[in-house]
Amino acid sequence: MFGAVIHAPGDVRFEEPPDPTIVEPTDAIVRTVAACVCGSDLWRYRGIAQVPSPTPIGHEFCGVVEAVGDAVSTVEVGDFVVGGFNPSDNTCPLCLKGAHANCINGNHYDGCQAEKIRIPLADGTLLATPGMPDADLIPSILALSDVMCTGWHAAVSAGVGPGKSVAVVGDGAVGLCAVLASVQLGAEVVIAMSRHADRQRVATEFGATHIVADRDEAGIAAVKELTDGIGADCVLECVGTESSRQQAVGCVRDGGNLGLVGVPHGDLPVNELFWRNVGIKGGPAHCRAYLPELLDLVLARKINPGLVFDLELPLAEVAEGYAAMDERRAIKSLLRI
Amino acid sequence: MFGAVIHAPGDVRFEEPPDPTIVEPTDAIVRTVAACVCGSDLWRYRGIAQVPSPTPIGHEFCGVVEAVGDAVSTVEVGDFVVGGFNPSDNTCPLCLKGAHANCINGNHYDGCQAEKIRIPLADGTLLATPGMPDADLIPSILALSDVMCTGWHAAVSAGVGPGKSVAVVGDGAVGLCAVLASVQLGAEVVIAMSRHADRQRVATEFGATHIVADRDEAGIAAVKELTDGIGADCVLECVGTESSRQQAVGCVRDGGNLGLVGVPHGDLPVNELFWRNVGIKGGPAHCRAYLPELLDLVLARKINPGLVFDLELPLAEVAEGYAAMDERRAIKSLLRI
Repeated sequence: MFGAVIHAPGDVRFEEPPDPTIVEPTDAIVRTVAACVCGSDLWRYRGIAQVPSPTPIGHEFCGVVEAVGDAVSTVEVGDFVVGGFNPSDNTCPLCLKGAHANCINGNHYDGCQAEKIRIPLADGTLLATPGMPDADLIPSILALSDVMCTGWHAAVSAGVGPGKSVAVVGDGAVGLCAVLASVQLGAEVVIAMSRHADRQRVATEFGATHIVADRDEAGIAAVKELTDGIGADCVLECVGTESSRQQAVGCVRDGGNLGLVGVPHGDLPVNELFWRNVGIKGGPAHCRAYLPELLDLVLARKINPGLVFDLELPLAEVAEGYAAMDERRAIKSLLRI
Repeated sequence: MFGAVIHAPGDVRFEEPPDPTIVEPTDAIVRTVAACVCGSDLWRYRGIAQVPSPTPIGHEFCGVVEAVGDAVSTVEVGDFVVGGFNPSDNTCPLCLKGAHANCINGNHYDGCQAEKIRIPLADGTLLATPGMPDADLIPSILALSDVMCTGWHAAVSAGVGPGKSVAVVGDGAVGLCAVLASVQLGAEVVIAMSRHADRQRVATEFGATHIVADRDEAGIAAVKELTDGIGADCVLECVGTESSRQQAVGCVRDGGNLGLVGVPHGDLPVNELFWRNVGIKGGPAHCRAYLPELLDLVLARKINPGLVFDLELPLAEVAEGYAAMDERRAIKSLLRI
């Protein structure tokens, strides 16, 4: 079968790795229908994270179950499934607390930008749709495998709810999904911080009440202007760089919360945050905890996170999918298999 | 009038500073009935914080209003009052969000270990009891001026609630009050980490379900043993040192929360906490937000935080009150005026 392999920064190739097979009785093999490129894949593509040897890449997918191990009981061959990027058994003490990203038996997978993939812990990771979904819903279902769960996680971690004011730092796919999550969770004011017209449009379509194009001190001032002069109750940090984290710290009100989902590439001033009574919470998303509710919302057409895909390519053109995101010609690339 | 003045580390004197007077129309003068020595006062007593010049000291009190400024409307001369250590106007945008410790017009006061004190922002800081309270309730009302609000803040900041498991790091008055708060807020498992028999007794009286005397790795293992092997949902850090913060990080489960109220004298591994999805929140307590509920609980004899006082002295013996706490002969010293 064919799939994407990263060889070095800037070098993603469409190759023919071996077909995956059932290794553990808890595995499933999924024939992908769609996959996509994640902002976090770009860390390696840009040489910020290491690529020690050629590696199949990708952790976002949806598709049809082709085979299951003997111990799998909740999905069957022929089911259309989506799974989060964090495999989880859904039964360990941490999963029972809803902390699926930190499942005691969990790990991570790569290699989902491919025709077929092996999914470990299939029962606790995959969720099947009732029957085959309408074709136009595929992008939104695919978005649940990472970016929508991650945006949702930012909002949940920061305590977004009815009546809250929210500012979202980062206008990538995750930031845009964090806007959508905040609106869905009932926030009253949702400020998208974005300088790009295409992303501003998606944020507005997702329900952002305000767009702030300024950054740094001017951006902080603009957010305060919209929040009684004190800053937002909840700030969702969806980038992870030093400057985006500082932006988030500046935009949150005393006593408020930062929801962190950007992979951390900078520190946080924890003692300043202590005196300001600002909470911080976040990390990798508890996908399996959120998937049932989010899948229901997608199937009921109440949320449409698939709008974050503004480039669709056949899997064979995966290299262009990376290049377009790297050069900011696309928000997020969807790969049809 | 007489009161305590700190001159240098280890040197607290009973002296005769000038009587306080109304300076701002929002001020009240309170004739103290009882005051106490705070663990945070010991930072200066021990020379860890600076004493640049002789300073009236103390920020915990209850007493009777002796005079009010023209703008004061919620307390009257003759009222018995308690106030939190963080003056707040109770009307600014941050107070309206419940973030009273960070009141835009707030500040801090010192000099409450004295016969009389000036309280700024009296309307938003003081709370009057309905009539004169029973004498035996004075210690518990006094405890609301800081330690009980601070223990409560640790628990609220960490999301303590019904069914939760809680571990409390620190067995000073604040840690013990954090135990009491956790029990009151409905936690199912409340682990007090304490090596001192007198403090263990108070923790047990406050409703702790378990005592862990071990520290470091052994302490972490003991907490995990009591929490399905994963650590506590909520860990309340009531000390602030490097080692107590590490203890807290080790005792919390992935996806759980640290409630921080110990004045920070160490860092936190925010990136480790990110990957573990552990939230941190805390800081100086939002006293005025909590006082109405806590005062009701004390007056209804549902909580008795005054048990943290195990030494009672006349104000003139304030120096001994400090020495006894410094040498760990007392948990907390109450000064009768």
